[in-house]
This record gives sequence, structure tokens and C-alpha cells, in this order.
Amino acid sequence: MYKAIIHITLKESVLDPQGSAVKQSLHSLEYGEVQDVRIGKFMELELDEQDEQKAQARVTEMCEKLLANTVIEDYTFKLEKK
Amino acid sequence: MYKAIIHITLKESVLDPQGSAVKQSLHSLEYGEVQDVRIGKFMELELDEQDEQKAQARVTEMCEKLLANTVIEDYTFKLEKK
Repeated sequence: MYKAIIHITLKESVLDPQGSAVKQSLHSLEYGEVQDVRIGKFMELELDEQDEQKAQARVTEMCEKLLANTVIEDYTFKLEKK
Repeated sequence: MYKAIIHITLKESVLDPQGSAVKQSLHSLEYGEVQDVRIGKFMELELDEQDEQKAQARVTEMCEKLLANTVIEDYTFKLEKK
């Protein structure tokens, strides 16, 4: 079994309205030291797969086809053997 | 300056409808090896703060007060000196 830990973040060039909203809320709570907030998704997938290279290829496909919108998002992932 | 990297995940005992929906979509795309999907939030905060202990305490407060719903979510974070 493998566990895939995936991080999906907006590309640097893409505006992050959710991040801006959180920053404003933090400022209104007197956390003025916060200069920037970027928000992304974090996914943990349990895979019934014994071959690491196959798991690597399949998770890449899953990210490209479904999990990430590659027009505006970047993704990274790592695999952990369970 | 410090960068806080925060992971917010649903508590194990809490149902993850979003994760279930993604699992079903992956199965419909023939990724049957996917046994479970858990989805969470991932935040990067840039802090204009020189003192690590103060940054640690302040980010804990931010998570407790705003960023995480501690009734149903767990949070972890690490600080990186920039």
C-alpha cells in the first residue's frame, strides 16, 4: 500500500481572493504582522498498489485529469510506503 | 521574517463528503486502486516577525481563533525562517 500526499496551490501569477480575505480577517483581529496568505488544497490518498513507479505514474495522471486544474494550479506530491 | 506552513484536516472521526466524492470520481475514471481520500486546507502565511517563539504563539492563536474550526478540524504548522 502507498499513501500519496498531494499539495495543490494556485500558480504564483494567479490572484488568491480567498487568501486576501483571510489576510483581511487576520488584520481585523489585530494580527498585523501577516504580510501575505496563500491558500491551497491538501489531499491524502490511500492506494492499494505495490509498485512505487506505477503509483507515481497513476497519481500524476489523477492530478492532471481530475485533482488539479493545471491551468491555474500547480501540484506536488510524495509517496509514503505503508 | 517567518513563513508559517499550516495544514488543516478534518478530525479522523468526522465524515469527509468531499473526499468521498473525489474517490467516486477517481473510481469512475478507472482508478480503482484508490481506497480512501481525505481532503484538507493548506495555508502559507508570510509573517513580519523576528522572534520565533512569538511567531509560534501568534500562529497558534490565529489557528485557534480563525483558521481552523477546532470542533471538527485538527491543525499542524511549521515555521520557516526567511
